[in-house]
Amino acid sequence: MKTTILVHCPDQGGIISSVTAFIHKNKGNIVYLDQHVDKPANVFFMRMVIEFSDTFSDLESFKSLFQKELASIYKMEWSLHTDDKLPKMALFVSKYNHCLYDLLSRYNSGELAVKIPFILSNHIDLKHIADQFEIPFFHIPFNKTNKIEAEKEQLKLLNTYEIDFIVLARYMQIVSGNLISKFPNKILNIHHSFLPAFAGAKPYHAAFKRGVKIIGATCHYVTEELDAGPIIEQDVTTVTHSHSIEDFITKGRDLEKIVLSRGVKLHIARKTMVYNNKTVIFS
Amino acid sequence: MKTTILVHCPDQGGIISSVTAFIHKNKGNIVYLDQHVDKPANVFFMRMVIEFSDTFSDLESFKSLFQKELASIYKMEWSLHTDDKLPKMALFVSKYNHCLYDLLSRYNSGELAVKIPFILSNHIDLKHIADQFEIPFFHIPFNKTNKIEAEKEQLKLLNTYEIDFIVLARYMQIVSGNLISKFPNKILNIHHSFLPAFAGAKPYHAAFKRGVKIIGATCHYVTEELDAGPIIEQDVTTVTHSHSIEDFITKGRDLEKIVLSRGVKLHIARKTMVYNNKTVIFS
Amino acid sequence: MKTTILVHCPDQGGIISSVTAFIHKNKGNIVYLDQHVDKPANVFFMRMVIEFSDTFSDLESFKSLFQKELASIYKMEWSLHTDDKLPKMALFVSKYNHCLYDLLSRYNSGELAVKIPFILSNHIDLKHIADQFEIPFFHIPFNKTNKIEAEKEQLKLLNTYEIDFIVLARYMQIVSGNLISKFPNKILNIHHSFLPAFAGAKPYHAAFKRGVKIIGATCHYVTEELDAGPIIEQDVTTVTHSHSIEDFITKGRDLEKIVLSRGVKLHIARKTMVYNNKTVIFS
Amino acid sequence: MKTTILVHCPDQGGIISSVTAFIHKNKGNIVYLDQHVDKPANVFFMRMVIEFSDTFSDLESFKSLFQKELASIYKMEWSLHTDDKLPKMALFVSKYNHCLYDLLSRYNSGELAVKIPFILSNHIDLKHIADQFEIPFFHIPFNKTNKIEAEKEQLKLLNTYEIDFIVLARYMQIVSGNLISKFPNKILNIHHSFLPAFAGAKPYHAAFKRGVKIIGATCHYVTEELDAGPIIEQDVTTVTHSHSIEDFITKGRDLEKIVLSRGVKLHIARKTMVYNNKTVIFS
Repeated sequence: MKTTILVHCPDQGGIISSVTAFIHKNKGNIVYLDQHVDKPANVFFMRMVIEFSDTFSDLESFKSLFQKELASIYKMEWSLHTDDKLPKMALFVSKYNHCLYDLLSRYNSGELAVKIPFILSNHIDLKHIADQFEIPFFHIPFNKTNKIEAEKEQLKLLNTYEIDFIVLARYMQIVSGNLISKFPNKILNIHHSFLPAFAGAKPYHAAFKRGVKIIGATCHYVTEELDAGPIIEQDVTTVTHSHSIEDFITKGRDLEKIVLSRGVKLHIARKTMVYNNKTVIFS
Repeated sequence: MKTTILVHCPDQGGIISSVTAFIHKNKGNIVYLDQHVDKPANVFFMRMVIEFSDTFSDLESFKSLFQKELASIYKMEWSLHTDDKLPKMALFVSKYNHCLYDLLSRYNSGELAVKIPFILSNHIDLKHIADQFEIPFFHIPFNKTNKIEAEKEQLKLLNTYEIDFIVLARYMQIVSGNLISKFPNKILNIHHSFLPAFAGAKPYHAAFKRGVKIIGATCHYVTEELDAGPIIEQDVTTVTHSHSIEDFITKGRDLEKIVLSRGVKLHIARKTMVYNNKTVIFS
Repeated sequence: MKTTILVHCPDQGGIISSVTAFIHKNKGNIVYLDQHVDKPANVFFMRMVIEFSDTFSDLESFKSLFQKELASIYKMEWSLHTDDKLPKMALFVSKYNHCLYDLLSRYNSGELAVKIPFILSNHIDLKHIADQFEIPFFHIPFNKTNKIEAEKEQLKLLNTYEIDFIVLARYMQIVSGNLISKFPNKILNIHHSFLPAFAGAKPYHAAFKRGVKIIGATCHYVTEELDAGPIIEQDVTTVTHSHSIEDFITKGRDLEKIVLSRGVKLHIARKTMVYNNKTVIFS
Repeated sequence: MKTTILVHCPDQGGIISSVTAFIHKNKGNIVYLDQHVDKPANVFFMRMVIEFSDTFSDLESFKSLFQKELASIYKMEWSLHTDDKLPKMALFVSKYNHCLYDLLSRYNSGELAVKIPFILSNHIDLKHIADQFEIPFFHIPFNKTNKIEAEKEQLKLLNTYEIDFIVLARYMQIVSGNLISKFPNKILNIHHSFLPAFAGAKPYHAAFKRGVKIIGATCHYVTEELDAGPIIEQDVTTVTHSHSIEDFITKGRDLEKIVLSRGVKLHIARKTMVYNNKTVIFS
């Protein structure tokens, strides 16, 4: 069993040696350690992957000790994850199929270590793809008047299926603060621009109008402020005057699916930590 | 003698064949032709490189005929450039030396087909580099109260040396509307961000605060609206959480100098056309 | 009806004006023209897109005239393509599904202007994907002793379905000279390295062993010499010492599918010309 | 005083905690730790940056203890570096000036934490640049018959000036095994191709002939086998059919200087470790 520990706390001397000594004393072997100090914020971040010896059995007491002997002293926020069960990822989609196809193809190829209990949409358009891949599809349409009721249905599904995190695969709807608060830093969105440029609607149109020579896509965690959450991953591609808005959209599709899948993989591997509306992305 | 013709006009049928027939009839051989139609704006753009036969001597009558038989009929704006004399480029700098070093190194290596009559700055800091490369350096300091007088001196120098275009190589000062109007689409600036993200001052600080994963640089023509002129060239490089603002600045320097030099070369080669605050960049 | 004309011939003065005058005289409007001269080889290349007026009806006599008045004089090799019927593309696959999924997703999204009459493989593994997308799948297994018979079956299918070009979407088999000769510059392969580095088998293993910091993928036309045909498109991605061979393979999959799809699109749009084992790729 | 420790040894459990405990016990605070395990080779690599408390004074006894309590037990090869004196870098050049200009500009800007005692060349062409930057220039011409004598002179200079490492900034000469053996993994070269493609002479010509769509540059440590040493850094740029060999060379120059300067900076910062003819590059 592989165990991943994520830690952040105020920076101070001796943390690395205290933690590594603790792990060693408690029969763990550190197979990976990466750390980062945000100097301006004076915050220490660390990600470790640990292998326990075969005779190790009591993860709960390990956790208690970690809290008592390290976390409470260094004022750590921390989490521990084992790889013995797959996280559950819900996909929210709209009418665009490229990110959905891409994620499901990777899922079918064994590239994503998750379960996908369902796909949810306010449109019926992509149901055939869910059917193709034999994944339940829930169609919850809504308009301005019944958005709150629709969200209740969404939340019910998320609860019922014990969803761990949500991927907005070109969902095209604004997610409510209520839903965000229930999945803090657990809703990933793909925005079709190089944020912070061209936040909001129709970024390719705005990029075309501005005459940029490079377009981008951004995977970020969703926060209450639109397109302003912590950035997980970005990538870009060149364009020229000869590209139309439609060309931007087509080229952008390839970016969006690549960038979203990279973000999803980083999240699954617990290589992301959020602090001050920014991410630390471990290697 | 190599002759470059740039044309733009309302799009309509038959332009290419009319122009090429005209060139052929008037003893020119088209060695390069590239064209672009901006469909939403219905504008036709073309760049041609022509070699005239050795016996050709009367460029002035060629130009008169071009105006009469083509330009006036198709409502063209056009220009014709021969390569028999080098354009004169003035460099405006401040305290940062990387773009200046880069441009002067290229100049010394014969990479830039220009003359550099002078380098101008409101600071004395980079004079030693001008001296190193044996180029006149004019120090015109100013503050809020005497900016207008300083600009008069600048304009006098630009006139005296018959400057064709100006490169702001990290000049760090806002250029007045008056100066811009005298050099329309002839002042190139390098902005140290991926515009339109992070326009204005301290873009690396803003990028760091936002937690972007990619930083960029943009070469654009200067217009009255700050950092909003037609974009000539952009490029980007990746950053991570482990990079400090200082790292952003250091990595950015390499971007800035590469992007500025590419923009300058495109301008020198007359491969840029401006329309609707955007550029057409010919190959 | 949009008509594309591709031309190459020995370079000489006056070609562009002769051709454009001919088009104009014969009621065509040139909406796109791009040309290239390979100076060392002294060869002229041109691609034009033409719209004929509504009253134009006789494409055959246009072609006869083009041959007589231009092609025979300038010693042109040329071809003319109309967009009124979709080219037929056969997919050859093996056991890797990522390129297949990617191409079929694009196909389903209307991104590829082709018909896909069938998918062919020597393995049965990917039949379920063909079924998912409701495309006929032909399983033609073979070994060293019956490879020639298998190819006969392949050729029969290619004939029966009137296939225009073949895409080897990680086919993993060497295609015979006989098959290549029947589809000259009409078989596209994706090689999982930045050619010419790491031609042949197991390029990711070789790249890992060499310790490169960048890996790539190459889409090229298949010729008799393995992995040495004209390159259509290449792209790369960075790797570090921390990436295992498996990481190379995973990262490479994303490259392969993007690069292959770009190559396929260029081929479909007739933006590729082959000369001296190199390609001219029009914009 | 900042102290950097580099370690590699056979991989085994407990190394990280042993080392960090040792550092802590000996009054060091680990401000940076990065580690890597090459699984196929079963080798553990680690880089640490340590700050000792102000009262710490005895680095020699720290080193003795490190050797006794850690290195001898874990069979480590290790080195310790303090930042209180700048390493001495010799530049070997030929006739190409772009890498030299770039490195000297960075040096003058304070970007490179080194001393440059001299520039050496078998040609006199770049002496004026050394003069510009007021760095001693030694002209040691040679031909086939007196190469050994010339190398003796080189070695004498390297000794006299106590050179720590050598940068071949487009030196264009093969360095002898004798010289390499005196500077193992301490001679950096820039090769103007994306190695292992186009090793040897005239890589841009070879790339042009092959019709690649991307060209590259590679910074590597020099070993006896030509262009086959451990790769430190690579980068690439796109090219098209419209680029001539001269365009490749011009575009390549920008790559070469960027890639070489990155490699040099990594070496200076002691972020490189060599093993099995590959590099580990720490972040």
